[in-house]
This record gives sequence, structure tokens and C-alpha cells, in this order.
Amino acid sequence: MINYANGKNFQKTIKIPAKSSVKPKSFSHGNRGMAFESDINETNEYYKNRGLCLVTKRPTPINVVEVDYSRGAIIKNAYFEKQSTTDYNGVYNGRYLDFEAKSTRKKTSFPLANISRHQIEHLKNVIKHKGIAFFIIEFSTFDEVYYLNAQYVINYYEKGERKSIPYDAVKEHGKRIKKAYIPRLDYLAIIQELYGKS
Amino acid sequence: MINYANGKNFQKTIKIPAKSSVKPKSFSHGNRGMAFESDINETNEYYKNRGLCLVTKRPTPINVVEVDYSRGAIIKNAYFEKQSTTDYNGVYNGRYLDFEAKSTRKKTSFPLANISRHQIEHLKNVIKHKGIAFFIIEFSTFDEVYYLNAQYVINYYEKGERKSIPYDAVKEHGKRIKKAYIPRLDYLAIIQELYGKS
Repeated sequence: MINYANGKNFQKTIKIPAKSSVKPKSFSHGNRGMAFESDINETNEYYKNRGLCLVTKRPTPINVVEVDYSRGAIIKNAYFEKQSTTDYNGVYNGRYLDFEAKSTRKKTSFPLANISRHQIEHLKNVIKHKGIAFFIIEFSTFDEVYYLNAQYVINYYEKGERKSIPYDAVKEHGKRIKKAYIPRLDYLAIIQELYGKS
Repeated sequence: MINYANGKNFQKTIKIPAKSSVKPKSFSHGNRGMAFESDINETNEYYKNRGLCLVTKRPTPINVVEVDYSRGAIIKNAYFEKQSTTDYNGVYNGRYLDFEAKSTRKKTSFPLANISRHQIEHLKNVIKHKGIAFFIIEFSTFDEVYYLNAQYVINYYEKGERKSIPYDAVKEHGKRIKKAYIPRLDYLAIIQELYGKS
């Protein structure tokens, strides 16, 4: 289960300033998707401050192998684990929300390769328990972001024939999320449209 | 925000076998509460497998300072961060659940010292958005576990006069959670009693 990231674009050892907003997740993704992720986090912060909904990001799971207690508690050896659930969940008007955010540079389709079987099983469970499950998908080349029902993605994933969802299908079956200054990505507007305002 | 754990009971450097079930959280708590935490995790696993509800544990947040990419992606320097939310959240019949689990060896009260202001703010937000917010509190000396409404704990926390909730108050205002072989700690039975069966 060791998540060896592809180190191609990195120096052998990277030092990150302690106060940097660069989060572990970013290592494996490079810069792609980082602005997107930060837009979602800022949107969640906005929703929280405005009292619209409460969504939190799950920390990246890390398997700790060795800790040095001589100077406090410094982790000296550890590795990233794959998220077995999704990155975000929360509550809107008492209802449970759960979603995964993914960015692609592709122009013709959204690849399903970086969605794990565990994540699909998790989202199926969320749906079974009547939670609101979805994906937020960015086509970075077009600067377009879509809300896509998790069930739609699950169906594609489980058909197994295709390893991606065509861009046109996302456009047709998803809902475009408006990009703005504040909030950056107003996905709650879509949830309110689909499930009612509180 | 560095969470320097008290290293008194540890050797200077502790090596943990990679497959160990010892999780980062355990470092700062020692053995206390570990069986309790594992009982909750097993209960959640049982609920998931039986399709009763879906509750996941948030990973311990870790701030990564240095990663060595020469042998994959090995974290060489990092430190534990305090959880700014709670340890568990999930969904039951579409409703959002959020709780913190704490164990104490004390006999006369449940100390509020290891509940952070961030966690209290988070739980207040959960309540504002109509989520089901609570604590699961273990008095390990008595082998007794209680479900306690988060609002009750928040009131104590914010009064500020007391730094703990008397055992008798927990007993009176909480609900005893049955311990059994399977499930270990049937807290969902209490949620069903309070909020209805699905």
C-alpha cells in the first residue's frame, strides 16, 4: 500500500518551509490541480464563515514508521498512504455531503485512472446511506469546472469498458460550476438547486 | 501549532513495524484509550458491513517538512498537528454525524483539558448546520462508556468556571453505551433512540 509518487519532476530531496501552504497531496500531483484544490478550500472557508454549510478536507493519511522524541516528536520516517475515502465531506442543512475533486488537463475526456476502487466503494456506501455524493471535475485547459453526480461516475467506472468519461458527457450530464472571485467555485448553488435551499 | 508530545514514557527513538496497527495518534496518548479507539473503529467497521451507517475516522494531520524522492517518496521530517475538527464523522440515513471520542482514567470527572477550542468551534458549527454532534466518553477505570450530546459539553466548556464535567453529570445527562462483543460499542442504538430509525 506504499504510495510511491513519481519523482520525475522533483529534486531528490525537497525541503518545504514549515509555514508553506504546500500540502503532502501536492507532491504526487505536481502543480497540476493545486490552484483548483486551493479554490475549493477557499470556497469551503467562505461557506463556513457565511454559515452556509460546513465542509472539511480529510488530511492525507500518512503511515508513521519512526518518531524521534529527543527533540519533541519529530517524524523521521513515514510514507504517504492512498486515501481510501474521498477528500471532502461535510454537512448542509443536516444532510451529509461527500465529494472528490479531480483536475485533468485532457481536452476530450476525464480519466478514471486516478480514482481508486476504495473511493468508488466509499461513494456507493454514501449513496446507500442517502448522503449527497458527487465529484467536482476541472478541465484545466478550458478553465471549466463541473459538478457531476457520483452515481454517474460509478456507472462509468463499473462498466469497465471505458477508462474515462468523454468531455461531452460531463458537459451534458454534469452541471457547470461558476468560477468567481468570491466564492471561487460555488458548488453549493448546485446542491441547493438539486436538493433545495435550507 | 507544533504538537510536541510528552516523550516521558518513550525511548528517544521508537521504530514501529510498518504493518503495526499503532497509529500516530497513539504516540501522544500512550496506551490509554487505545483499546477504546480500536473498539470504536471496529464498531464502525461493523456498521459499514451491516449497512447501518457509514462513519470514517479522519487521519491525524501531519505537517510534512522534507521528503526524500530518491527511494520513492519517503518522508524524512514531519510533525504531528493538532486535529482542528473531530476524529469521526459520517452519515446515518442521510443525516450528518460528527463526534469526538475521549477516554479518561479519572473516577470523579471528565476533564475538558484535552478538548481544543477548535474542536468546540467545529462542533458548534455542526450543530448550527443541523448535524448530530456528540461525544463518546469512556471512564476506563469503571469500564463505562457514555454518549453525551455535544451541546452539553460545549455549555460546560464555555462556562469556563469548571475544567471538567463531573462523573455524576455525565451519568445523568449522557446515555450509557452498551459494551458487547459485536458490536463493541453500540452508539448507533442511542442515535436511533434519539433521532429515529431509518
